[in-house]
Amino acid sequence: MHNLVELQEKFEAYFSKRHFPGDPATLYDPAQYFLGIGGKRVRPVMCLMGNELFDEIHPDAFPLATAIELFHNFTLIHDDIMDKAPLRRGMPTVHEKYGEPTALLGGDVMLVTAYEYINRIDTRFLRQVLRLFSTTAKEVCEGQQLDMDFEKAPSVTLDEYIHMIGLKTSVLLAASLRMGAILGGAGEANQRLLYDFGKALGLAFQIQDDYLDAFGDPEKFGKQVGGDIMANKKTFLLIHALETADARQRAEIERLLATDGPGKVESMLALFRACGVDAWARSLKAKYVDEAAGQLERIAVTAHRKKPLADLMEYLVRRER
Amino acid sequence: MHNLVELQEKFEAYFSKRHFPGDPATLYDPAQYFLGIGGKRVRPVMCLMGNELFDEIHPDAFPLATAIELFHNFTLIHDDIMDKAPLRRGMPTVHEKYGEPTALLGGDVMLVTAYEYINRIDTRFLRQVLRLFSTTAKEVCEGQQLDMDFEKAPSVTLDEYIHMIGLKTSVLLAASLRMGAILGGAGEANQRLLYDFGKALGLAFQIQDDYLDAFGDPEKFGKQVGGDIMANKKTFLLIHALETADARQRAEIERLLATDGPGKVESMLALFRACGVDAWARSLKAKYVDEAAGQLERIAVTAHRKKPLADLMEYLVRRER
Repeated sequence: MHNLVELQEKFEAYFSKRHFPGDPATLYDPAQYFLGIGGKRVRPVMCLMGNELFDEIHPDAFPLATAIELFHNFTLIHDDIMDKAPLRRGMPTVHEKYGEPTALLGGDVMLVTAYEYINRIDTRFLRQVLRLFSTTAKEVCEGQQLDMDFEKAPSVTLDEYIHMIGLKTSVLLAASLRMGAILGGAGEANQRLLYDFGKALGLAFQIQDDYLDAFGDPEKFGKQVGGDIMANKKTFLLIHALETADARQRAEIERLLATDGPGKVESMLALFRACGVDAWARSLKAKYVDEAAGQLERIAVTAHRKKPLADLMEYLVRRER
Repeated sequence: MHNLVELQEKFEAYFSKRHFPGDPATLYDPAQYFLGIGGKRVRPVMCLMGNELFDEIHPDAFPLATAIELFHNFTLIHDDIMDKAPLRRGMPTVHEKYGEPTALLGGDVMLVTAYEYINRIDTRFLRQVLRLFSTTAKEVCEGQQLDMDFEKAPSVTLDEYIHMIGLKTSVLLAASLRMGAILGGAGEANQRLLYDFGKALGLAFQIQDDYLDAFGDPEKFGKQVGGDIMANKKTFLLIHALETADARQRAEIERLLATDGPGKVESMLALFRACGVDAWARSLKAKYVDEAAGQLERIAVTAHRKKPLADLMEYLVRRER
C-alpha cells in the first residue's frame, strides 16, 4: 500500500517524459509545454489508489493514469481558450503563448494521445475502460457547456449548479477511481460504491474551492482572495446568497454584481456572512464528506486498504489552499 | 458486391439519425446540425469498400464507418474555427452559428463519440483498429498544423506540400480502406497495398481539387473558379509555378499575390499557363493515379471484387466538380 505522496512520486516518475513525437514541433512542443506546467496529478493518483484498493498495482494502471492526466490537460487547454484565460498556474496558457489554432489542435492531439494510452491496457479490460472513459469525457464536455450557459443565464438554482459541477469536476474523479478498480478486478458493486465516493468527494472539493476563494486565509491561500467575486462567478456561495437574501440584501447583491470598484469583495463578503453563506457552505461540504465517507465504508475490502483514500479525502477537503 | 451509389445509400440509411444525447441541447444540437449539412460520405464508403473487397460486409463495418465520418466532421468543425470560415457547403459553420466555444466543444464531443462507435466493434479487431484510428487522427492534426505553418512560410517546396497533403487528406482515405479491410480479415500484405492505394488516390484527388479550382469549367464546377488564387492559397499549382517561373514571371506572380484587385485570377491563370502548370498538374495527377492503380492491381483478390474501388478512383479523379 502506498500513500498519497508515494503515489504522486510513482506517477510523476512514469509521467515526466515526452508524450508526443518530435515532428512537427510547432504542434507537439506546445502540447508538451502545457504538461510541464505541472499540477497535483490528483486524478492519476486516484486511478492508482482505486487500483491498489483491490490488489497490488497493476502495471497497466500507469498508462491508464497517464491517459486520465492527458485527458484532464486536454480539457484545461480547451477551457482556457473558451475562457480566454491568459495564465494557468502562473504560466502563460497555450493559446496565449502559441496562438489559438495551435492550442485547439494541441488539445485535440492530447485527447487522441490519451486514447493511445488506453489502448495499451490488457484486452480483458479494454472495452470496459474505453466505455467509461468516453462516457466520462462526454460528461465533462457537457459540464463545461452548462458552465458557459450558466454564465449567461439570469439565474441558476442550486440543483442546476450541483448537476453542472458534478459533470464538470466530479465524474472524472469518480471515473479515475473506478477505472483503476476495474484493473484491480473489483466487482460491479464495489466499483459503484467507489464511483459514488468519488462523485461526493468531487462536490465537497468544489465547495471547498469556492469557500476558500471567498473566506480563505489570504496568508495560506496563495492567491488573491475574492477572485470569483470580482469575476461575478456563479459559485455555490453566490447562488445560495441569492436564494436566501431578503429583498434589500438581494438588491444590494445585484448592485454589487453591476459594479467593479474597490470594496466590492469586502461588501459582498459582508453580505455573504449576513446571509449565513459561510456556515451553510461548511455544512453542505460536511454533508458530501459524510456521504463520501459512507460509500467508502461500504466498500467490501478490509479497512486498512481504505486508508490512502480516507487520507486523500482529508487532504482534498481540509486543505486551506 | 455493391457500387458507390449503393454503398452511399446503405451508409446514409445507417448514419442519418441523431448521434448524440438530447441534453444539453446547447452542446449537442450544434454538433448534430453540422452532420446534417451533408457531404459525399466518401470516407465511410471507402471503409465499406475496403471491407467488401475481402468478404461480405461485416455488420461492424457500419459503426466503424460512422466513427470515421464523425472523426472527419470533427476535423472540419475545428478547421473551420482555425480558418475563420463562415460557410461550409453554403451553410453557416458551427462557430458562425453558435459561437466559437460551442464549436470547439461540439468538435470535442464528436471526436469522443467517434471513439464510442469504435468501441462497438468485435473485440478481435478492437485493438488493431483503435491503433490505426488514433495514429491517423494524430497525422491529420499534424497535416492541419503544417498547413497553417505553410501559410506563414515564405516558401514551400513541392515535397513539403505533398508531405502535408498526405497527412491532411490522404492518410484518412487510406486508413478508411484499411480499417474496413481489417474487419474483412485481410492479411497484412493486402492491407498495406490497399493503404498505399488510398494514399496515392488521396494525392491525385487533391491535385484534381487544386486543378479544378483554377482550370475548372465554371459551368460544371458549381462554385466560383479562382477561389484559391484570390485567397493566395499555396496550392500544387502556385508552388509549381513559383518553382518553374523565370525571374520576370516570378516577379509578376509576387506582385499579383500582393494585390486583391479585379483581374487577379485571370492574370494568375495566364501566368500558370505560361509556366505550363496546367499540363504539369495533369501529368502529376496521372502519375498518382497510375501508382494507385498499380497498388490495386497487386492486391491478391479476384479482379471483379476490385471494380467498385476502380470505379471510385475514376469518380474521384475524373470529376469536373
